[in-house]
Amino acid sequence: MSDHSPAQADNVTMSSGGLYSLATKGAKDVIDKATPQVLEAIDRMNPEPELSEFHMVDMGCADGGTSLQMVEAVIQKVRQAGTETPIRVTYSDQPRNDFNALVGIIHGISDFDTYLNRHNNVFPSCSGASFYLQGVPDLSVDLGFSATAMHWLSRKPCDIANHVHMVGASKSELQVFAEQARTDWETILLCRARELKPGGRLVLVNFCIDPDGQYLGNTGGINMFDTFHSNWSQMLDQKRISQHEYARMTLPQYYNTIEEFSEPLVDTDSRCYRAGLRLEKIQTAVVRCPFAAEFESDNDTKNFADGLIPTIRSWNESTFLGALDPARPTDERNQLIEDYYELYRQQVLDDPSGHGMDYVHAYMTIARV
Amino acid sequence: MSDHSPAQADNVTMSSGGLYSLATKGAKDVIDKATPQVLEAIDRMNPEPELSEFHMVDMGCADGGTSLQMVEAVIQKVRQAGTETPIRVTYSDQPRNDFNALVGIIHGISDFDTYLNRHNNVFPSCSGASFYLQGVPDLSVDLGFSATAMHWLSRKPCDIANHVHMVGASKSELQVFAEQARTDWETILLCRARELKPGGRLVLVNFCIDPDGQYLGNTGGINMFDTFHSNWSQMLDQKRISQHEYARMTLPQYYNTIEEFSEPLVDTDSRCYRAGLRLEKIQTAVVRCPFAAEFESDNDTKNFADGLIPTIRSWNESTFLGALDPARPTDERNQLIEDYYELYRQQVLDDPSGHGMDYVHAYMTIARV
Repeated sequence: MSDHSPAQADNVTMSSGGLYSLATKGAKDVIDKATPQVLEAIDRMNPEPELSEFHMVDMGCADGGTSLQMVEAVIQKVRQAGTETPIRVTYSDQPRNDFNALVGIIHGISDFDTYLNRHNNVFPSCSGASFYLQGVPDLSVDLGFSATAMHWLSRKPCDIANHVHMVGASKSELQVFAEQARTDWETILLCRARELKPGGRLVLVNFCIDPDGQYLGNTGGINMFDTFHSNWSQMLDQKRISQHEYARMTLPQYYNTIEEFSEPLVDTDSRCYRAGLRLEKIQTAVVRCPFAAEFESDNDTKNFADGLIPTIRSWNESTFLGALDPARPTDERNQLIEDYYELYRQQVLDDPSGHGMDYVHAYMTIARV
Repeated sequence: MSDHSPAQADNVTMSSGGLYSLATKGAKDVIDKATPQVLEAIDRMNPEPELSEFHMVDMGCADGGTSLQMVEAVIQKVRQAGTETPIRVTYSDQPRNDFNALVGIIHGISDFDTYLNRHNNVFPSCSGASFYLQGVPDLSVDLGFSATAMHWLSRKPCDIANHVHMVGASKSELQVFAEQARTDWETILLCRARELKPGGRLVLVNFCIDPDGQYLGNTGGINMFDTFHSNWSQMLDQKRISQHEYARMTLPQYYNTIEEFSEPLVDTDSRCYRAGLRLEKIQTAVVRCPFAAEFESDNDTKNFADGLIPTIRSWNESTFLGALDPARPTDERNQLIEDYYELYRQQVLDDPSGHGMDYVHAYMTIARV
């Protein structure tokens, strides 16, 4: 029985206390960019005015702040059909997510402006079932959405010896990661196939390696993941971390290509295709790092470094921290992590050119026949 | 628009971090006592095997630990109908509730044993809509449950000058509280009338004043609420708190009588009756204070005091803290609260006889025609 197991690999949590949405302006930009595709998906569904309810799910929602406006656009779209159909919004994430921040943001006890201020007959709720599990009953979802979440694998299939991420893995390591990612992607899709109503749609916005070989933080300038690795390696050279700590720092992530995302949705023999899922649309797009963009206009190096490093920390700090020997005192571990990110910050301060974390995503619409 | 407003009067929160369920063994005893009535209510509903889903709601759930076994009994009962009908369990509480503890307990990342370990096709989710709001769509609930929660008023209608609770209010203050409670009870019931499916049932287990005049902590021994008041009054006499702090310490609670609970459900002209709610059953019962019961068998005074005081703090500390002048430094406020509860603890240590917090509830079953 795995209904209640953690959502992703252990030691992976986003920043808590509402900090996630504050730190990740770029993640909101990505969702804003996806919003027209979400509305188009609703057009394709053509919801009937006599619909008993419209149920959308935001999977891997973190604190929910980045998707508030997208959810409101969906509410407006459904209301345009001319009815007061009840709208259920299920937010899901792993059980260690910060649900207090999520509920606070949705219910307006935060600095975020919630759609509940303007819309009636909308019923949000939260689920601790990750996207690796079925989170809602069979045939109950009209619209499934997820952004910048499904690159987290269900487990770390192996350590990557000389890097911290699959983008720098050796050929054999990459094969192991690709196989894990293939299985995980199939698991994710088969859960969704059960949850979706016939005619329902998924809009999934996932990190990818695009046809030009670009990916998160690697769009022509300095490769962000290589910086992660070289700085971690420097801490090993300085004997501040052990060989074991160096080696096991491996992000349990995989960035699929367009082909890898598409395969189970177009191969008529695949389990996902047979379960009724069909790829309607897939395209990639780059969303500019908001901190790099701001730097281009204001040339304020300190502001740039003080924006970029926290946005990086918000999603990978827990993994770096988890790689450190738990026998070290907590203070010592925290100091090592502070020093690790300070290295990066100083590099940006010394020479900001080429730094940044551009987002590279595949934007998919998937139908359930 | 009030869809997202806090669930109860401000400054009312239960203990966080899973401490609520650990501290309130008695609250679980009450739910266990109600469980046969819950199962009987399901018998009356006679759920059909081809039911598309069975949806139960636990309103005012706190961290969910006290109701885990009752929810599992419901799951078993529904499964006895011989089907794998999906079961949705919606947990609701005010948005400042500790949802992290709640999700952790439900999903098995706590010391509590969750029903998800043993049952498939069960989908829990959490809502930050209090029982003063409609939390789920119209006509969507089979079974609504709430225990030891609905005595919290939506607001404090006035201060009680010479006591901390309505059980010690003057006649005119009591009238104001009774009117607030009447309106609040109607609001709570009308929300439920919208949510329930026809044929659905509510089982509500609410603090009451029973036909013998007994209520929480007042069942023949020392009146717990009078102790709250006399100790608070003593801090005023010692000039440790101001007259203003003394006066505004008023718990926003009301304990209805059987007649007050029943009135909108049996008066054929009432809005609740016209909305389809019918009282099927109401009875009162006393559940013994588990710490007093333990003391009777082991005569361990320290153990008694160290159990009783935390169970009291778990539900009223936030109100005492909120009565203190916010201009005081936080440390000073915390120390005053420590000292306040220490007074009570010493009284129990000095002479334990007559102390305790017996629970006095009305157990209601309400049908939606």
